[in-house]
Amino acid sequence: MIDERFLQQMKFVLEVDKLKDIGRQTYVSNGKRKENDAEHSWHLALMAYILKEYSNEDIDVLKVILMVLIHDIVEIDAGDTYAYDEEGYKTKAIRENAAADRLFGLLPKDQGEYFKALWQEFEAGETMEAKYANSLDRLQPMMLNDATDGIAWVEHSVTREKVRKRYLTAKQGSETMWEYGQYIIDKNVKKGRISE
Amino acid sequence: MIDERFLQQMKFVLEVDKLKDIGRQTYVSNGKRKENDAEHSWHLALMAYILKEYSNEDIDVLKVILMVLIHDIVEIDAGDTYAYDEEGYKTKAIRENAAADRLFGLLPKDQGEYFKALWQEFEAGETMEAKYANSLDRLQPMMLNDATDGIAWVEHSVTREKVRKRYLTAKQGSETMWEYGQYIIDKNVKKGRISE
Repeated sequence: MIDERFLQQMKFVLEVDKLKDIGRQTYVSNGKRKENDAEHSWHLALMAYILKEYSNEDIDVLKVILMVLIHDIVEIDAGDTYAYDEEGYKTKAIRENAAADRLFGLLPKDQGEYFKALWQEFEAGETMEAKYANSLDRLQPMMLNDATDGIAWVEHSVTREKVRKRYLTAKQGSETMWEYGQYIIDKNVKKGRISE
Repeated sequence: MIDERFLQQMKFVLEVDKLKDIGRQTYVSNGKRKENDAEHSWHLALMAYILKEYSNEDIDVLKVILMVLIHDIVEIDAGDTYAYDEEGYKTKAIRENAAADRLFGLLPKDQGEYFKALWQEFEAGETMEAKYANSLDRLQPMMLNDATDGIAWVEHSVTREKVRKRYLTAKQGSETMWEYGQYIIDKNVKKGRISE
């Protein structure tokens, strides 16, 4: 039976298709173009399952997957704020909160509230699921930047200290991912892709 | 601790980044370009959760999400075979099986075997999870084709009978999605985007 609830859900599903056109600063592995939020979210969801054994504590992996699938949806309205854009970060929270209300508000109330809470949990980064999800969100661009000769780092002239500080979040979710990140950073500083 | 297992997992995670460059025939909702497999897989994973109440029988939603996240990975080696390409379909199974062996074989044995089995389960379409996942895989392009004035249908001059036959799969997973598809097909036949 096609009822109002189903139509609301489909409206949301169609609206979030726009995530495919929200660009990020990270290049895909062939280095030919930058990835978008939908591709990034797919990548994180898959990584969430494959790397779950490296979470610092036990996690509900379904919850993490849902979290990363929706973590960037607010950017449909609020745009992507690049990690090292200090001006953009000042208004990020306000812009994204309004976006969450509009976008998750398209869903039936129960699902909309659940997704908004899940997004807030991710942003707050306090639960183990949120910490682990945030680690993945740091690890994935680190991996791609490394695989593409650090072009995104070079373009933005980032320093070891900036990359390290941003990557610090990963440590809370996974010591292994943190350790791996240190190795990648050292390697890319040596190669001159990240300045000392 | 960075060990061999973690490095194998990261190798797989990086290799499957190529899914972002496997094109599909479906246009994204703004009609400006076609989507790729990674974007499509993200969309299905999100839909799997949102629409789970419409599965004909109870499902393990985490399993469905994993299934759709990996269902097209074989296309990295085997390419996308368009739904109405009869020649391509003749060799699809052989090409995709070799791809599954190579790609999932990059993972540690336990995870590689699990993913290969999950992909085979999706392809066989016999369990409720596979039926529901296949319904989503039919519904998503139906929705996007409808939202983009049927350009993909027009480009391939498809007929009502062809679209209906292909969409029949959706009925096994979800009566609601099946019903919705009939409505979309009727509407687009009337508008001349699908020929009678």
